[in-house]
Amino acid sequence: MAKKYSRKHEVAYYECDINQTMTFPAMLGIVIKTSEDQSDSLGRSSDFIKNFGLTWVITNYSMEITRLPRVGEIVNVTTQAMEYNKYFCYRNFWIHDEAGNELVKIDSVFVLMDFVNRKMSSVNEEIIAPFESEKIKKIKRQPKIEKIEAGFMLPYRVRFYDIDSNQHVNNAMYFNWMIDVLGREFLTTHVPKSVVIRFDKEVEYGHEIESHFEQIPVENGVKTRHEIRMQDQIYCEANIMWEHK
Amino acid sequence: MAKKYSRKHEVAYYECDINQTMTFPAMLGIVIKTSEDQSDSLGRSSDFIKNFGLTWVITNYSMEITRLPRVGEIVNVTTQAMEYNKYFCYRNFWIHDEAGNELVKIDSVFVLMDFVNRKMSSVNEEIIAPFESEKIKKIKRQPKIEKIEAGFMLPYRVRFYDIDSNQHVNNAMYFNWMIDVLGREFLTTHVPKSVVIRFDKEVEYGHEIESHFEQIPVENGVKTRHEIRMQDQIYCEANIMWEHK
Repeated sequence: MAKKYSRKHEVAYYECDINQTMTFPAMLGIVIKTSEDQSDSLGRSSDFIKNFGLTWVITNYSMEITRLPRVGEIVNVTTQAMEYNKYFCYRNFWIHDEAGNELVKIDSVFVLMDFVNRKMSSVNEEIIAPFESEKIKKIKRQPKIEKIEAGFMLPYRVRFYDIDSNQHVNNAMYFNWMIDVLGREFLTTHVPKSVVIRFDKEVEYGHEIESHFEQIPVENGVKTRHEIRMQDQIYCEANIMWEHK
Repeated sequence: MAKKYSRKHEVAYYECDINQTMTFPAMLGIVIKTSEDQSDSLGRSSDFIKNFGLTWVITNYSMEITRLPRVGEIVNVTTQAMEYNKYFCYRNFWIHDEAGNELVKIDSVFVLMDFVNRKMSSVNEEIIAPFESEKIKKIKRQPKIEKIEAGFMLPYRVRFYDIDSNQHVNNAMYFNWMIDVLGREFLTTHVPKSVVIRFDKEVEYGHEIESHFEQIPVENGVKTRHEIRMQDQIYCEANIMWEHK
């Protein structure tokens, strides 16, 4: 059974939007912090991994949202590196409220990448061993992400603060561009229930990206399809299910 | 002697830029959180103040930076509502490292504003009493902010996530626009030593603002002058002193 690791977090006003609930970038910030803390506690810090010429990269998230964390609330963030095969590591995250109710569950896919040539590396046993993840043969199929058929877009320039202390554009930043295009009217009348997202290519500082989106009415809500594109290449794609408030 | 209030904070990777040090928005986020926590502990939460039809607004910051907080470091954030006169409240903040060395000192000016008509209100004794600030007659002169003489500018659109759970564009967000224009080359070869900033008018969701700036060489570094403008009106102005790394 893979090791679990938890930490408490008080949801600050600056992590929330006008709905009084946590933004996607803030939620992903605290969950990834928890996996970094677990890695540090097991002697597998990013500095240790750098010794192998490698770095962790996240390729997929799949989120189920029962309720978004609220401003002022103390939440418990838990992570567990469940399974791995030759190339992919499957890590789960949970955010619970103080009473132990599950608020958010996130499945993620991590890969190890060569620091210099940015190519995927096979999973290194010495790096992964302390997490006690189960070794599996199977490559787990990720949820299908529907393409945009007829959408709109807004351009965004990748800013200095979009690059974090890990030297790359933080995955969480893609949500800034994907969420913003939906507009205040939509974002204050709908709540997200699930998200599937795949990161295909890395955007870089100074890039001018296009955030494309399309809204599809569905029973009880709306599905939004998203693509971050640049010069007709897709860098990131996502589908989000929303319920009416 | 006005009451002091402190809280510890662990500097997370997502609060830092590629220099491995805290961004301005993240620093202001944690200091303002500390003053909110003090207010809550004294029964003077923003909900309490809303009962008077009022809200706090920050008009000025003046920062002295010995060293920016680093990723992974535990810092101690302290605040003290020092003095007030008929209209202005003077609140200080300090960020110390674990050994007690001062990293950052921030002087700030707060005013109470009518929630509906957005006009300044005189300081209400019932709101301010528990902080035990000294009542003074004098209006404290704020540091002079030099205007831009010949600058450059980049446009920025105010995004959904720039409005925080307090329903307004967070003051800290102005730093996103002011810092970004300086560019990665400048921002990785200079460190900020002091900042003076004045918030003149509130920008709103959807506004397209212009972030104007000018660089002036000075002994041992560079002074940058900043103005956030829209349609020839100034919304925010600042000067920052930088040293070469």
